[in-house]
Amino acid sequence: MAEAKVLSGAGLRGQVAGQTALSTVGQSGAGLTYRGYDVRDLAAEAQFEEVAYLLLYGELPTQAQLDAYTRKLRQLRDLPQALKEVLERIPADAHPMDVMRTGCSFLGNLEPERDFTEQQDKTDRLLGAFPAIMCYWYRFSHQGQRIECVTDEASIGGHFLHLLHGKKPSELHVKVMNVSLILYAEHEFNASTFTARVCASTLSDLFSCITAAIGSLRGPLHGGANEAAMEMIERFDSPEAAIKGTLAMLERKDKIMGFGHAIYKDNDPRNEVIKGWSKKLADEVGDTVLFPVSEAIDKTMWEQKKLFPNADFYHASAYHFMGIPTKLFTPIFVCSRLTGWAAHVFEQRANNRIIRPSAEYTGVEQRKFVPIEQR
Amino acid sequence: MAEAKVLSGAGLRGQVAGQTALSTVGQSGAGLTYRGYDVRDLAAEAQFEEVAYLLLYGELPTQAQLDAYTRKLRQLRDLPQALKEVLERIPADAHPMDVMRTGCSFLGNLEPERDFTEQQDKTDRLLGAFPAIMCYWYRFSHQGQRIECVTDEASIGGHFLHLLHGKKPSELHVKVMNVSLILYAEHEFNASTFTARVCASTLSDLFSCITAAIGSLRGPLHGGANEAAMEMIERFDSPEAAIKGTLAMLERKDKIMGFGHAIYKDNDPRNEVIKGWSKKLADEVGDTVLFPVSEAIDKTMWEQKKLFPNADFYHASAYHFMGIPTKLFTPIFVCSRLTGWAAHVFEQRANNRIIRPSAEYTGVEQRKFVPIEQR
Repeated sequence: MAEAKVLSGAGLRGQVAGQTALSTVGQSGAGLTYRGYDVRDLAAEAQFEEVAYLLLYGELPTQAQLDAYTRKLRQLRDLPQALKEVLERIPADAHPMDVMRTGCSFLGNLEPERDFTEQQDKTDRLLGAFPAIMCYWYRFSHQGQRIECVTDEASIGGHFLHLLHGKKPSELHVKVMNVSLILYAEHEFNASTFTARVCASTLSDLFSCITAAIGSLRGPLHGGANEAAMEMIERFDSPEAAIKGTLAMLERKDKIMGFGHAIYKDNDPRNEVIKGWSKKLADEVGDTVLFPVSEAIDKTMWEQKKLFPNADFYHASAYHFMGIPTKLFTPIFVCSRLTGWAAHVFEQRANNRIIRPSAEYTGVEQRKFVPIEQR
Repeated sequence: MAEAKVLSGAGLRGQVAGQTALSTVGQSGAGLTYRGYDVRDLAAEAQFEEVAYLLLYGELPTQAQLDAYTRKLRQLRDLPQALKEVLERIPADAHPMDVMRTGCSFLGNLEPERDFTEQQDKTDRLLGAFPAIMCYWYRFSHQGQRIECVTDEASIGGHFLHLLHGKKPSELHVKVMNVSLILYAEHEFNASTFTARVCASTLSDLFSCITAAIGSLRGPLHGGANEAAMEMIERFDSPEAAIKGTLAMLERKDKIMGFGHAIYKDNDPRNEVIKGWSKKLADEVGDTVLFPVSEAIDKTMWEQKKLFPNADFYHASAYHFMGIPTKLFTPIFVCSRLTGWAAHVFEQRANNRIIRPSAEYTGVEQRKFVPIEQR
């Protein structure tokens, strides 16, 4: 047998860095499954809290379990006064992902994970608190208002919209937020999840792992594609202008966000779901620009490049129709992906070896130290 | 030729995950080099600020460059009022690494890295500010004092000791801090550095990368070995008790911190250096317990297990002799390793591909969604 060879593909692409029972991405059959369930079925039939329970506790809950779980999460929504005071000290022009990263990190000082038996409770706490971390900062810094962080909304998606807009959201909006949170919940060894696992492999605490993952998701190569897509879509006032503009961007070889995927080759299974809901929202608000413009870009990208929209593209218009400021798109991703990150942390802890790869040295040969007066 | 095989060793051990020109660990010749220089020569002859410059700017500085650099760093020591107010809201029983992680993350809101041309300036800012982040929180929460964050100390090590103790440190203590910061500055693809690189690979900002790395260093399998060593050493009041206690721990198969290393096989080149300085400090304070106890444990571990002390073991007594509280040992590590982390971030950015490995799926087969009323 030939000796095993260490591969060193850039970015560890195609290299197996560990095991997971949480999801499959781009395997045959369903494009994306969470613990065996097709994400499209979950998005159609489940609540986000059910999916969170599935990822964090291992199986879909019974009705009694789900009721108890949503009750628990609702009790974990308020923020400690000290955390509110920290958020008030973050300027309005801060990057919202820096706010999420800092809010998560600070909460870890006040309510630390003392040992790993607390891992699920601490995750649930973050699930409860993240919408308020985002909205308390946003509404204080942008509108000068100290909002109440508790609402009577049953769902996390509804709670977020209520905090953001200061009023009860419509049923349709609650439904779309629910679908969106499900679609973004988990995606195998993407960069932010892998960050969380490397951090977890030192047996660090949950807050460190989630804070680190937020830092990775902040990067423009990872999260933020829906924000970039929105900025592009908003530039066009008609499908004709969009087609022309897209062709011009392709001609200039501009990067067009929201299309193609590192793993999926033919389509992103999440796209058809969110596209359908974006259409419903467009109809609700009587939109005649944003959705047609999105479709025109989509069609042009396929015709010209055979590139398909990924999960992010129609999320842009969907969020926009619900009145969500573009800068909060990626923080919503955090509220959702927290479930996948934490489930990966649990998995890493359950069968851990510290993640410590090797490097190929490309630097100078060993050399003799030269005292400063001789340099 | 046989087809290349993807290895999946746990923890990526022995797998090349990228290239670096920054350091060699455990290669033939010197055990540890920074950009080609033996760490023992640097520790003997250089200032930490020279080593920081070497790692961050590529070459050892001339005297004029070093003077300008230390002048710059000295101007970057004070903390913004809002950051002080955040640190005042972190309780005394918080984990000091949670404080460092939060202080770094919060500063990223106030003074963000707007683009990568700022990467060296932002690193220098953190080099200047980290001692104050640690000491402002420590002295406020433990002693109720709002300290001045600026001192006239020339070196980072001296500045830290001055902030901690509120007075000018001795020359010997400044020298030992300098050596210690050099020894901990860089160590190839360890878990925290790899965390920083994964985060950097999404093109996230420097504060996110460093915050993430702090979260990984917090883990007991990574940073914190010197703290654990201190707690063990302190338990013994004589070399005889230490030998007896060590044998008993070995008998019980307790984990004994500060010995052995994942990469070094025969000795840790940093140990002889810090051991020598710990001895000098012991002589200075007239110690007749802590250093002899340390040596007794060292000798017993070698006789019984052929295990050698790593960089952390004699750091414990050295820091203790300088009056540093045990809980601040790992935050000092942060002040030093920041240089290595940042240099790796620069390197990742200069030749980037997003780090996105694959996973082996070990979960359930695809299964049909069951509506909640049928569960």
